[in-house]
Amino acid sequence: MDIRQYIATKRQQIDTALERYLPEDESTLAEHIKAMRYSIFAGGKRVRPILCLAAAEAVKDFNNEFPDSVMLSACALECIHTYSLIHDDLPAMDDDDLRRGMPTNHMVYGEACAILAGDSLLTYAFDLLSRDVRETIPAHDRLTIISLISRAVGPEGMVGGQFLDLTHEGKEAQYTMLRDIHSRKTGALITASVQTGGVLGSSSPEQFKALTRYGIQIGLAFQIVDDLLNVEGTEEQLGKAAGSDAARNKATYPALFGVDKTRKKAQEALQEALATLDDFDERADRLRDLARYVVSRKR
Amino acid sequence: MDIRQYIATKRQQIDTALERYLPEDESTLAEHIKAMRYSIFAGGKRVRPILCLAAAEAVKDFNNEFPDSVMLSACALECIHTYSLIHDDLPAMDDDDLRRGMPTNHMVYGEACAILAGDSLLTYAFDLLSRDVRETIPAHDRLTIISLISRAVGPEGMVGGQFLDLTHEGKEAQYTMLRDIHSRKTGALITASVQTGGVLGSSSPEQFKALTRYGIQIGLAFQIVDDLLNVEGTEEQLGKAAGSDAARNKATYPALFGVDKTRKKAQEALQEALATLDDFDERADRLRDLARYVVSRKR
Repeated sequence: MDIRQYIATKRQQIDTALERYLPEDESTLAEHIKAMRYSIFAGGKRVRPILCLAAAEAVKDFNNEFPDSVMLSACALECIHTYSLIHDDLPAMDDDDLRRGMPTNHMVYGEACAILAGDSLLTYAFDLLSRDVRETIPAHDRLTIISLISRAVGPEGMVGGQFLDLTHEGKEAQYTMLRDIHSRKTGALITASVQTGGVLGSSSPEQFKALTRYGIQIGLAFQIVDDLLNVEGTEEQLGKAAGSDAARNKATYPALFGVDKTRKKAQEALQEALATLDDFDERADRLRDLARYVVSRKR
Repeated sequence: MDIRQYIATKRQQIDTALERYLPEDESTLAEHIKAMRYSIFAGGKRVRPILCLAAAEAVKDFNNEFPDSVMLSACALECIHTYSLIHDDLPAMDDDDLRRGMPTNHMVYGEACAILAGDSLLTYAFDLLSRDVRETIPAHDRLTIISLISRAVGPEGMVGGQFLDLTHEGKEAQYTMLRDIHSRKTGALITASVQTGGVLGSSSPEQFKALTRYGIQIGLAFQIVDDLLNVEGTEEQLGKAAGSDAARNKATYPALFGVDKTRKKAQEALQEALATLDDFDERADRLRDLARYVVSRKR
């Protein structure tokens, strides 16, 4: 099975689980739940849940049959990612009309309802993460996962990154600040996704450390490539306006280093990500393939 | 110790814990953390954490020395309540300029930063609830608390209530809808606060059920009195514009039933709350006093 097939299979599994776990839109709250579901099923690549599942498989044999708490965690990661996109797109924030080629949440449901859809997706993630399922993952490990994820996406993680990104928009690009913003805004949740998979697969402390380093490098590679795609991609490929970062005078890798050096930096991050997995056996091949895929992707 | 003194003492304990647990505003994120702290320390009554502590004391002797996970949970409840106020006050929502006599978060920090301060407080609550503290509360009970709280404040709880409140503003007041909105928007987190105290105090299943019923009644009483105060209170007492509900043509108890019948309904909820505690000993006296206090309060 090549990596594209692996991604497609996993994506399907995750979509099925999301369909099953998200609340039904048949209550008095139908419109609110529709708004949550709209952004969840708006064509996301499912990068974070896939990384979570691949990391779990890198340390434990699941034979593609994941217990509920694994799928619940994977779905929670996607809920959090989706909430962050809805809030980032808001008029008061980045004010984006399009996301993945579709109107953003607030363009469809209005600003107030979009804020609430984001709030609910964030909250719902912790509902999924704490759901009472009778099975083998110890309660203590599930608490650890909640702690890892909430720290990654809280004031000193993802939200902090968005705050810095907003308040530094238009200011001169500085490499230290750029790395800081990226590592909080994108890197932290990607790293937590890999760590979550590690905990779900009962990783040893050494494996957990290696997976953490892998997560940091893959998060970095992901963001560098995002910056490159924003410069080089077409609007059709991106599903949003190309060149929007430059228009906003945002600090990006290409703006700081030029395209060629930025490509080299993505390759370096890939090599470092692969190196972190040196002590893993072939069960980590999916993580290796995913690292290569992240760097070569076109959207 | 009378109830006012009890509330003052507990409030002090909670404020000290919040001061200790909230992140410091000395990093690159100083402005963001300042915005979080601004609303946390804007004079809240700490109703939810106090109910949590009093419920814990109703089933277990703590001698006013609460282990870390109890105080962490109490603080988490206040973080969630504060996030909900920040988001409810936003221009796209209720568009309020004043809260407890102080400018609302977005009036001080701007809309984008206020949205992010709310997002961070919500997320931070789950960080506090999952924090690794070595002590006696079992991991499974802590997961139960996270589950109770996340459900209470998610799409079918508090956020759903705010959604219904927004989308029904200006429409004709209907009693069924009014109760539904109240029970989600205010009742759910108040009930979860009492339940959380019960779990922290290792309540028996019967005690937990009784505390849940108490929480529902006290939540109801709280909201009925809030509606009354909005009609009868002065701007000075309320710290916000009096009569604002009527101006918005909001469904409220006084609008539906008139002031006298609404007062009677508050008394009924109080009596029902007290009745739920019939099988509790004198350790539940604080909960009884708090129920009376909620109904007689002037702000």
